[in-house]
Amino acid sequence: MNTKGQKIYEGKAKIVYAVEGRSDLCWVEYKDSLTAFNAQKKGSFAAKGILNRNIASRIFAFLKERGVDNHWLENKGEREMICRQVEIVPIEVVVRNRLAGSTAKKFGIEEGREIAEPLVEFYFKKDELGDPFMSDDQALAIGAARNRGELDELKRQALVCNKLLQEFFKKIGVELIDFKLEFGRRDGKVLLADEVSPDTCRLWDLATGEKLDKDRFRRDLGRVEESYQEIWQRIQSAWGANV
Amino acid sequence: MNTKGQKIYEGKAKIVYAVEGRSDLCWVEYKDSLTAFNAQKKGSFAAKGILNRNIASRIFAFLKERGVDNHWLENKGEREMICRQVEIVPIEVVVRNRLAGSTAKKFGIEEGREIAEPLVEFYFKKDELGDPFMSDDQALAIGAARNRGELDELKRQALVCNKLLQEFFKKIGVELIDFKLEFGRRDGKVLLADEVSPDTCRLWDLATGEKLDKDRFRRDLGRVEESYQEIWQRIQSAWGANV
Repeated sequence: MNTKGQKIYEGKAKIVYAVEGRSDLCWVEYKDSLTAFNAQKKGSFAAKGILNRNIASRIFAFLKERGVDNHWLENKGEREMICRQVEIVPIEVVVRNRLAGSTAKKFGIEEGREIAEPLVEFYFKKDELGDPFMSDDQALAIGAARNRGELDELKRQALVCNKLLQEFFKKIGVELIDFKLEFGRRDGKVLLADEVSPDTCRLWDLATGEKLDKDRFRRDLGRVEESYQEIWQRIQSAWGANV
Repeated sequence: MNTKGQKIYEGKAKIVYAVEGRSDLCWVEYKDSLTAFNAQKKGSFAAKGILNRNIASRIFAFLKERGVDNHWLENKGEREMICRQVEIVPIEVVVRNRLAGSTAKKFGIEEGREIAEPLVEFYFKKDELGDPFMSDDQALAIGAARNRGELDELKRQALVCNKLLQEFFKKIGVELIDFKLEFGRRDGKVLLADEVSPDTCRLWDLATGEKLDKDRFRRDLGRVEESYQEIWQRIQSAWGANV
Protein backbone atom coordinates (compact mmCIF):
# COMPACT_ATOMS: atom_id res chain seq x y z
CA MET A 1 0.00 0.00 0.00
CA ASN A 2 1.26 3.44 -0.95
CA THR A 3 1.06 6.28 1.56
CA LYS A 4 0.80 9.95 0.68
CA GLY A 5 3.91 11.86 1.75
CA GLN A 6 5.08 15.45 1.93
CA LYS A 7 3.90 18.10 -0.50
CA ILE A 8 6.55 18.55 -3.22
CA TYR A 9 5.00 21.20 -5.43
CA GLU A 10 1.75 23.11 -5.83
CA GLY A 11 0.81 24.20 -9.34
CA LYS A 12 -2.16 26.16 -10.66
CA ALA A 13 -4.45 23.12 -10.99
CA LYS A 14 -2.70 20.29 -9.12
CA ILE A 15 -0.68 19.53 -6.00
CA VAL A 16 2.08 16.94 -6.17
CA TYR A 17 3.00 14.94 -3.05
CA ALA A 18 5.69 12.37 -2.45
CA VAL A 19 4.82 8.69 -1.91
CA GLU A 20 6.46 7.43 1.28
CA GLY A 21 9.46 5.24 0.60
CA ARG A 22 8.96 5.41 -3.17
CA SER A 23 11.09 8.07 -4.87
CA ASP A 24 9.96 6.66 -8.24
CA LEU A 25 6.32 7.64 -7.61
CA CYS A 26 4.32 10.77 -6.88
CA TRP A 27 0.79 11.39 -5.60
CA VAL A 28 -1.15 13.99 -7.58
CA GLU A 29 -4.19 15.84 -6.27
CA TYR A 30 -6.44 17.73 -8.70
CA LYS A 31 -7.60 21.11 -7.35
CA ASP A 32 -10.88 22.88 -8.03
CA SER A 33 -9.16 26.04 -9.24
CA LEU A 34 -9.34 27.29 -12.81
CA THR A 35 -6.79 29.77 -14.12
CA ALA A 36 -6.22 31.42 -17.49
CA PHE A 37 -3.85 33.92 -19.12
CA ASN A 38 -0.90 32.80 -17.00
CA ALA A 39 -3.03 32.92 -13.80
CA GLN A 40 -4.08 36.54 -14.28
CA LYS A 41 -7.67 35.24 -14.34
CA LYS A 42 -8.74 32.93 -11.53
CA GLY A 43 -11.85 30.94 -10.73
CA SER A 44 -13.05 27.59 -9.45
CA PHE A 45 -16.04 25.30 -9.11
CA ALA A 46 -16.58 22.61 -6.52
CA ALA A 47 -16.38 19.40 -8.59
CA LYS A 48 -13.73 20.56 -11.03
CA GLY A 49 -10.82 18.59 -9.57
CA ILE A 50 -12.94 15.45 -9.40
CA LEU A 51 -14.11 15.79 -13.02
CA ASN A 52 -10.64 16.50 -14.37
CA ARG A 53 -9.07 13.64 -12.40
CA ASN A 54 -11.73 11.31 -13.81
CA ILE A 55 -11.40 12.56 -17.38
CA ALA A 56 -7.59 12.60 -17.31
CA SER A 57 -7.27 9.11 -15.85
CA ARG A 58 -9.79 7.71 -18.35
CA ILE A 59 -7.74 9.23 -21.17
CA PHE A 60 -4.41 8.07 -19.72
CA ALA A 61 -5.80 4.51 -19.48
CA PHE A 62 -7.13 4.76 -23.06
CA LEU A 63 -3.73 5.90 -24.34
CA LYS A 64 -1.85 3.25 -22.36
CA GLU A 65 -4.07 0.48 -23.77
CA ARG A 66 -3.14 1.72 -27.25
CA GLY A 67 0.60 1.80 -26.70
CA VAL A 68 1.21 5.37 -25.50
CA ASP A 69 2.87 4.85 -22.15
CA ASN A 70 2.38 7.68 -19.65
CA HIS A 71 2.88 8.61 -16.02
CA TRP A 72 -0.56 7.52 -14.72
CA LEU A 73 -0.68 4.36 -12.62
CA GLU A 74 -3.87 4.31 -10.53
CA ASN A 75 -6.53 6.53 -9.03
CA LYS A 76 -6.87 7.25 -5.32
CA GLY A 77 -9.95 8.70 -3.61
CA GLU A 78 -12.08 10.95 -5.76
CA ARG A 79 -9.52 13.56 -6.91
CA GLU A 80 -6.10 11.94 -6.70
CA MET A 81 -3.90 9.62 -8.70
CA ILE A 82 -0.56 7.90 -8.26
CA CYS A 83 1.86 8.59 -11.08
CA ARG A 84 5.39 7.71 -11.97
CA GLN A 85 7.82 10.44 -10.92
CA VAL A 86 9.47 12.22 -13.86
CA GLU A 87 11.63 15.26 -14.47
CA ILE A 88 9.31 17.54 -16.44
CA VAL A 89 10.65 18.67 -19.84
CA PRO A 90 10.25 22.49 -19.84
CA ILE A 91 8.30 22.42 -23.10
CA GLU A 92 4.55 22.62 -23.55
CA VAL A 93 3.69 20.68 -26.69
CA VAL A 94 0.57 21.92 -28.47
CA VAL A 95 -1.11 20.02 -31.31
CA ARG A 96 -3.62 21.86 -33.45
CA ASN A 97 -6.10 20.33 -35.91
CA ARG A 98 -7.63 23.74 -36.59
CA LEU A 99 -6.14 27.15 -35.87
CA ALA A 100 -7.57 28.73 -32.72
CA GLY A 101 -6.46 30.55 -29.59
CA SER A 102 -3.12 32.35 -29.52
CA THR A 103 -1.96 31.04 -32.92
CA ALA A 104 -5.10 32.21 -34.75
CA LYS A 105 -4.79 35.59 -33.03
CA LYS A 106 -1.07 35.93 -33.78
CA PHE A 107 -1.62 35.48 -37.51
CA GLY A 108 -4.91 37.41 -37.69
CA ILE A 109 -6.79 34.26 -38.76
CA GLU A 110 -10.41 33.45 -37.97
CA GLU A 111 -10.89 30.98 -35.11
CA GLY A 112 -11.30 27.43 -36.40
CA ARG A 113 -9.46 27.75 -39.73
CA GLU A 114 -8.77 24.28 -41.12
CA ILE A 115 -5.17 23.29 -41.84
CA ALA A 116 -3.83 20.67 -44.22
CA GLU A 117 -2.12 18.63 -41.51
CA PRO A 118 -1.88 18.74 -37.71
CA LEU A 119 0.44 21.47 -36.46
CA VAL A 120 2.78 20.77 -33.53
CA GLU A 121 4.02 23.78 -31.55
CA PHE A 122 6.52 24.13 -28.69
CA TYR A 123 6.20 26.68 -25.88
CA PHE A 124 8.92 27.26 -23.29
CA LYS A 125 7.37 26.34 -19.95
CA LYS A 126 8.28 29.31 -17.78
CA ASP A 127 5.45 31.25 -16.13
CA GLU A 128 7.53 34.37 -15.45
CA LEU A 129 8.19 34.70 -19.22
CA GLY A 130 4.58 33.93 -20.17
CA ASP A 131 5.44 30.56 -21.75
CA PRO A 132 6.83 31.99 -25.01
CA PHE A 133 6.37 30.17 -28.31
CA MET A 134 9.60 28.80 -29.76
CA SER A 135 10.84 27.04 -32.86
CA ASP A 136 12.72 23.74 -32.74
CA ASP A 137 16.00 25.59 -33.28
CA GLN A 138 15.27 28.04 -30.45
CA ALA A 139 14.36 25.17 -28.10
CA LEU A 140 17.78 23.69 -28.81
CA ALA A 141 19.64 27.03 -28.61
CA ILE A 142 18.29 27.80 -25.12
CA GLY A 143 18.63 24.20 -23.90
CA ALA A 144 14.92 23.55 -23.32
CA ALA A 145 15.38 20.24 -25.12
CA ARG A 146 18.47 18.10 -24.67
CA ASN A 147 18.91 17.43 -28.37
CA ARG A 148 17.05 17.23 -31.68
CA GLY A 149 16.22 13.58 -31.06
CA GLU A 150 14.30 14.54 -27.92
CA LEU A 151 12.34 17.23 -29.80
CA ASP A 152 11.53 14.82 -32.61
CA GLU A 153 10.33 12.26 -30.06
CA LEU A 154 8.06 14.86 -28.40
CA LYS A 155 6.60 15.66 -31.80
CA ARG A 156 6.19 12.01 -32.73
CA GLN A 157 4.42 11.08 -29.49
CA ALA A 158 2.23 14.19 -29.68
CA LEU A 159 1.06 13.24 -33.17
CA VAL A 160 0.33 9.66 -32.10
CA CYS A 161 -1.71 11.05 -29.16
CA ASN A 162 -3.52 13.34 -31.57
CA LYS A 163 -4.70 10.44 -33.74
CA LEU A 164 -5.88 8.49 -30.69
CA LEU A 165 -7.49 11.46 -28.94
CA GLN A 166 -9.34 12.47 -32.11
CA GLU A 167 -10.85 8.96 -32.14
CA PHE A 168 -11.57 9.15 -28.39
CA PHE A 169 -13.43 12.45 -28.65
CA LYS A 170 -15.17 11.70 -31.94
CA LYS A 171 -16.94 8.80 -30.23
CA ILE A 172 -18.40 11.27 -27.70
CA GLY A 173 -19.53 13.66 -30.42
CA VAL A 174 -16.72 16.15 -29.93
CA GLU A 175 -14.12 17.57 -32.32
CA LEU A 176 -10.63 17.89 -30.87
CA ILE A 177 -9.52 21.34 -32.09
CA ASP A 178 -6.21 21.48 -30.20
CA PHE A 179 -4.59 20.36 -26.96
CA LYS A 180 -1.47 20.81 -24.83
CA LEU A 181 0.73 17.99 -23.55
CA GLU A 182 3.62 17.91 -21.14
CA PHE A 183 6.23 15.21 -20.97
CA GLY A 184 8.74 14.02 -18.41
CA ARG A 185 12.14 12.41 -18.68
CA ARG A 186 12.52 8.99 -17.12
CA ASP A 187 15.09 6.27 -17.78
CA GLY A 188 16.46 8.24 -20.73
CA LYS A 189 13.07 8.42 -22.45
CA VAL A 190 10.28 10.98 -22.66
CA LEU A 191 7.02 9.89 -21.04
CA LEU A 192 3.64 11.61 -21.36
CA ALA A 193 2.80 13.32 -18.05
CA ASP A 194 0.68 16.18 -16.61
CA GLU A 195 -3.00 15.86 -17.64
CA VAL A 196 -5.37 15.75 -20.60
CA SER A 197 -8.72 17.35 -19.74
CA PRO A 198 -11.05 20.21 -20.73
CA ASP A 199 -8.41 22.45 -19.08
CA THR A 200 -5.84 21.47 -21.70
CA CYS A 201 -7.96 20.81 -24.82
CA ARG A 202 -10.28 22.76 -27.10
CA LEU A 203 -13.35 20.54 -27.48
CA TRP A 204 -16.15 21.62 -29.81
CA ASP A 205 -19.46 19.76 -29.99
CA LEU A 206 -19.55 18.04 -33.40
CA ALA A 207 -23.24 18.80 -33.97
CA THR A 208 -23.56 22.36 -32.64
CA GLY A 209 -19.98 23.72 -32.52
CA GLU A 210 -20.52 24.61 -28.86
CA LYS A 211 -17.32 24.93 -26.84
CA LEU A 212 -17.05 22.35 -24.04
CA ASP A 213 -13.70 23.34 -22.52
CA LYS A 214 -11.80 25.99 -20.58
CA ASP A 215 -12.51 28.63 -23.24
CA ARG A 216 -15.93 28.93 -21.55
CA PHE A 217 -14.03 30.25 -18.51
CA ARG A 218 -11.37 32.23 -20.41
CA ARG A 219 -13.99 34.02 -22.48
CA ASP A 220 -16.78 34.31 -19.89
CA LEU A 221 -19.17 32.15 -21.93
CA GLY A 222 -20.92 30.72 -18.86
CA ARG A 223 -21.88 27.07 -18.17
CA VAL A 224 -18.28 26.15 -17.36
CA GLU A 225 -19.09 23.46 -14.80
CA GLU A 226 -21.90 22.05 -16.94
CA SER A 227 -19.52 21.66 -19.89
CA TYR A 228 -16.91 19.75 -17.89
CA GLN A 229 -19.71 17.53 -16.52
CA GLU A 230 -21.09 17.02 -20.03
CA ILE A 231 -17.68 15.80 -21.24
CA TRP A 232 -17.34 13.39 -18.32
CA GLN A 233 -20.88 12.03 -18.75
CA ARG A 234 -20.37 11.43 -22.45
CA ILE A 235 -17.03 9.70 -21.75
CA GLN A 236 -18.68 7.38 -19.22
CA SER A 237 -21.43 6.49 -21.70
CA ALA A 238 -19.12 5.87 -24.62
CA TRP A 239 -15.95 4.55 -23.03
CA GLY A 240 -16.94 3.45 -19.51
CA ALA A 241 -15.76 5.01 -16.28
CA ASN A 242 -13.63 2.24 -14.85
CA VAL A 243 -9.91 2.58 -15.08
CA MET B 1 19.64 53.33 -70.55
CA ASN B 2 17.05 52.64 -67.89
CA THR B 3 14.56 55.34 -66.95
CA LYS B 4 12.90 55.66 -63.56
CA GLY B 5 9.16 55.06 -63.79
CA GLN B 6 6.12 55.33 -61.55
CA LYS B 7 6.30 54.80 -57.81
CA ILE B 8 5.18 51.25 -57.02
CA TYR B 9 5.54 51.09 -53.27
CA GLU B 10 6.86 53.17 -50.39
CA GLY B 11 8.18 51.33 -47.36
CA LYS B 12 9.63 52.58 -44.10
CA ALA B 13 13.19 52.98 -45.42
CA LYS B 14 12.92 52.70 -49.19
CA ILE B 15 10.77 53.67 -52.15
CA VAL B 16 10.41 51.29 -55.07
CA TYR B 17 9.78 52.66 -58.58
CA ALA B 18 9.16 50.91 -61.86
CA VAL B 19 11.76 51.00 -64.65
CA GLU B 20 10.14 52.16 -67.90
CA GLY B 21 9.58 49.32 -70.31
CA ARG B 22 11.25 46.77 -68.04
CA SER B 23 8.81 44.82 -65.87
CA ASP B 24 11.71 42.59 -64.79
CA LEU B 25 13.47 45.48 -63.03
CA CYS B 26 12.77 47.99 -60.29
CA TRP B 27 14.42 51.22 -59.17
CA VAL B 28 15.00 51.46 -55.43
CA GLU B 29 15.56 54.74 -53.58
CA TYR B 30 16.96 54.68 -50.02
CA LYS B 31 15.25 57.19 -47.70
CA ASP B 32 16.79 59.06 -44.78
CA SER B 33 14.13 57.85 -42.35
CA LEU B 34 14.86 55.51 -39.45
CA THR B 35 12.06 53.57 -37.80
CA ALA B 36 11.94 51.04 -34.98
CA PHE B 37 9.40 48.94 -33.09
CA ASN B 38 7.16 48.53 -36.12
CA ALA B 39 7.41 52.27 -36.92
CA GLN B 40 6.19 53.38 -33.49
CA LYS B 41 9.52 55.20 -33.15
CA LYS B 42 10.59 57.46 -36.00
CA GLY B 43 13.68 59.46 -36.81
CA SER B 44 16.05 60.36 -39.63
CA PHE B 45 19.42 61.89 -40.48
CA ALA B 46 20.43 63.56 -43.70
CA ALA B 47 22.97 61.12 -45.15
CA LYS B 48 21.32 57.93 -43.96
CA GLY B 49 19.86 56.85 -47.30
CA ILE B 50 23.17 57.50 -49.02
CA LEU B 51 25.17 55.54 -46.45
CA ASN B 52 22.79 52.58 -46.47
CA ARG B 53 22.64 52.45 -50.27
CA ASN B 54 26.44 52.43 -50.36
CA ILE B 55 26.81 49.81 -47.64
CA ALA B 56 24.05 47.59 -49.05
CA SER B 57 25.34 47.69 -52.62
CA ARG B 58 28.92 46.96 -51.47
CA ILE B 59 27.61 43.94 -49.57
CA PHE B 60 25.40 42.77 -52.45
CA ALA B 61 28.41 42.95 -54.78
CA PHE B 62 30.55 41.06 -52.24
CA LEU B 63 27.93 38.31 -51.93
CA LYS B 64 27.44 38.07 -55.68
CA GLU B 65 31.20 37.69 -56.27
CA ARG B 66 31.10 34.76 -53.83
CA GLY B 67 28.18 32.94 -55.45
CA VAL B 68 25.18 34.34 -53.56
CA ASP B 69 23.06 35.77 -56.32
CA ASN B 70 20.79 38.65 -55.27
CA HIS B 71 18.51 41.34 -56.65
CA TRP B 72 21.12 44.14 -56.89
CA LEU B 73 22.30 45.09 -60.38
CA GLU B 74 23.81 48.60 -60.34
CA ASN B 75 23.80 51.85 -58.42
CA LYS B 76 22.21 55.05 -59.68
CA GLY B 77 22.88 58.54 -58.34
CA GLU B 78 23.85 58.71 -54.69
CA ARG B 79 20.94 56.91 -53.03
CA GLU B 80 19.39 54.64 -55.65
CA MET B 81 19.96 51.24 -57.19
CA ILE B 82 18.46 49.17 -59.96
CA CYS B 83 17.38 45.73 -58.86
CA ARG B 84 15.74 42.72 -60.38
CA GLN B 85 12.01 42.71 -59.71
CA VAL B 86 10.88 39.90 -57.43
CA GLU B 87 7.77 38.84 -55.57
CA ILE B 88 8.79 39.27 -51.93
CA VAL B 89 8.43 36.13 -49.77
CA PRO B 90 6.44 37.30 -46.71
CA ILE B 91 9.08 35.97 -44.33
CA GLU B 92 11.80 37.90 -42.55
CA VAL B 93 14.73 35.56 -42.08
CA VAL B 94 16.88 36.35 -39.05
CA VAL B 95 20.25 34.74 -38.40
CA ARG B 96 21.75 35.04 -34.93
CA ASN B 97 25.34 34.29 -33.91
CA ARG B 98 24.65 35.48 -30.37
CA LEU B 99 21.27 35.93 -28.66
CA ALA B 100 20.18 39.56 -28.59
CA GLY B 101 17.14 41.73 -29.24
CA SER B 102 13.65 40.20 -29.13
CA THR B 103 14.88 36.61 -28.77
CA ALA B 104 17.10 37.36 -25.76
CA LYS B 105 14.22 39.29 -24.18
CA LYS B 106 11.65 36.58 -24.90
CA PHE B 107 13.70 33.94 -23.08
CA GLY B 108 14.95 36.22 -20.29
CA ILE B 109 18.55 35.80 -21.46
CA GLU B 110 21.33 38.37 -21.16
CA GLU B 111 22.10 40.27 -24.38
CA GLY B 112 24.98 38.68 -26.27
CA ARG B 113 24.71 35.12 -24.96
CA GLU B 114 26.80 32.82 -27.15
CA ILE B 115 25.11 29.88 -28.87
CA ALA B 116 26.60 26.64 -30.11
CA GLU B 117 25.62 27.21 -33.73
CA PRO B 118 23.95 30.00 -35.72
CA LEU B 119 20.20 30.21 -35.15
CA VAL B 120 17.87 30.89 -38.08
CA GLU B 121 14.44 32.38 -37.28
CA PHE B 122 11.41 33.15 -39.43
CA TYR B 123 9.07 36.09 -38.84
CA PHE B 124 5.81 36.58 -40.75
CA LYS B 125 6.24 39.85 -42.66
CA LYS B 126 3.02 41.67 -41.84
CA ASP B 127 3.25 45.08 -40.16
CA GLU B 128 -0.34 45.09 -38.91
CA LEU B 129 0.39 41.90 -36.94
CA GLY B 130 3.77 43.15 -35.70
CA ASP B 131 5.78 40.63 -37.76
CA PRO B 132 5.14 37.65 -35.46
CA PHE B 133 7.77 34.98 -34.96
CA MET B 134 6.83 31.60 -36.44
CA SER B 135 8.15 28.07 -36.62
CA ASP B 136 8.75 26.26 -39.89
CA ASP B 137 5.51 24.32 -39.41
CA GLN B 138 3.51 27.50 -38.75
CA ALA B 139 5.01 29.16 -41.86
CA LEU B 140 3.72 26.22 -43.88
CA ALA B 141 0.33 26.05 -42.11
CA ILE B 142 -0.48 29.72 -42.86
CA GLY B 143 0.98 29.58 -46.36
CA ALA B 144 3.80 32.10 -45.80
CA ALA B 145 6.10 29.66 -47.56
CA ARG B 146 5.04 27.63 -50.57
CA ASN B 147 6.49 24.39 -49.31
CA ARG B 148 9.14 22.91 -47.04
CA GLY B 149 11.69 23.02 -49.85
CA GLU B 150 11.32 26.80 -50.06
CA LEU B 151 11.81 27.18 -46.29
CA ASP B 152 14.86 24.94 -46.37
CA GLU B 153 16.28 27.00 -49.21
CA LEU B 154 15.73 30.25 -47.26
CA LYS B 155 17.55 28.73 -44.32
CA ARG B 156 20.37 27.39 -46.49
CA GLN B 157 20.98 30.72 -48.24
CA ALA B 158 20.75 32.61 -44.95
CA LEU B 159 23.45 30.42 -43.41
CA VAL B 160 25.71 30.84 -46.45
CA CYS B 161 25.23 34.63 -46.19
CA ASN B 162 26.06 34.42 -42.49
CA LYS B 163 29.44 32.79 -43.15
CA LEU B 164 30.30 35.36 -45.81
CA LEU B 165 29.01 38.36 -43.86
CA GLN B 166 30.91 37.29 -40.74
CA GLU B 167 34.07 37.35 -42.87
CA PHE B 168 33.08 40.69 -44.43
CA PHE B 169 32.53 42.38 -41.08
CA LYS B 170 35.44 40.73 -39.28
CA LYS B 171 37.79 42.40 -41.75
CA ILE B 172 36.43 45.79 -40.65
CA GLY B 173 36.81 44.94 -36.96
CA VAL B 174 33.13 44.23 -36.35
CA GLU B 175 31.35 41.18 -34.96
CA LEU B 176 28.13 40.27 -36.75
CA ILE B 177 25.74 39.49 -33.88
CA ASP B 178 22.60 38.99 -35.96
CA PHE B 179 20.90 40.22 -39.14
CA LYS B 180 17.64 40.09 -41.05
CA LEU B 181 17.28 39.08 -44.69
CA GLU B 182 14.36 39.18 -47.09
CA PHE B 183 14.06 37.10 -50.22
CA GLY B 184 12.03 37.27 -53.39
CA ARG B 185 10.68 34.64 -55.74
CA ARG B 186 11.87 34.81 -59.31
CA ASP B 187 11.89 32.14 -62.00
CA GLY B 188 10.84 29.51 -59.46
CA LYS B 189 13.80 30.26 -57.17
CA VAL B 190 14.34 32.38 -54.08
CA LEU B 191 16.69 35.31 -54.55
CA LEU B 192 18.19 37.51 -51.82
CA ALA B 193 16.53 40.96 -51.93
CA ASP B 194 15.79 43.99 -49.71
CA GLU B 195 18.98 45.33 -48.06
CA VAL B 196 21.84 44.47 -45.71
CA SER B 197 22.94 47.51 -43.71
CA PRO B 198 23.25 48.84 -40.13
CA ASP B 199 19.43 49.04 -40.25
CA THR B 200 19.16 45.27 -40.56
CA CYS B 201 22.23 43.99 -38.68
CA ARG B 202 23.57 44.09 -35.13
CA LEU B 203 27.22 45.11 -35.49
CA TRP B 204 29.44 45.26 -32.42
CA ASP B 205 32.96 46.67 -32.54
CA LEU B 206 35.33 43.72 -32.05
CA ALA B 207 37.69 45.66 -29.81
CA THR B 208 35.33 47.71 -27.65
CA GLY B 209 31.93 45.98 -27.97
CA GLU B 210 30.43 49.32 -29.01
CA LYS B 211 27.20 49.01 -31.00
CA LEU B 212 27.50 50.39 -34.54
CA ASP B 213 23.95 49.77 -35.81
CA LYS B 214 20.29 50.74 -35.48
CA ASP B 215 20.23 49.76 -31.80
CA ARG B 216 21.86 53.18 -31.19
CA PHE B 217 18.58 54.67 -32.48
CA ARG B 218 16.23 52.08 -30.94
CA ARG B 219 17.78 52.50 -27.51
CA ASP B 220 18.64 56.21 -27.63
CA LEU B 221 22.39 55.58 -27.33
CA GLY B 222 23.34 58.64 -29.39
CA ARG B 223 25.93 58.88 -32.20
CA VAL B 224 23.59 57.14 -34.66
CA GLU B 225 24.82 58.95 -37.77
CA GLU B 226 28.47 58.67 -36.70
CA SER B 227 28.11 54.90 -36.34
CA TYR B 228 26.65 54.43 -39.82
CA GLN B 229 29.44 56.63 -41.20
CA GLU B 230 32.05 54.65 -39.27
CA ILE B 231 30.79 51.40 -40.83
CA TRP B 232 30.89 52.85 -44.34
CA GLN B 233 34.38 54.33 -43.84
CA ARG B 234 35.75 51.03 -42.57
CA ILE B 235 34.16 49.16 -45.48
CA GLN B 236 35.75 51.54 -47.98
CA SER B 237 39.17 51.09 -46.38
CA ALA B 238 38.98 47.33 -46.16
CA TRP B 239 36.94 46.35 -49.19
CA GLY B 240 36.97 49.36 -51.48
CA ALA B 241 33.98 51.47 -52.44
CA ASN B 242 33.61 50.63 -56.08
CA VAL B 243 30.85 48.33 -57.10
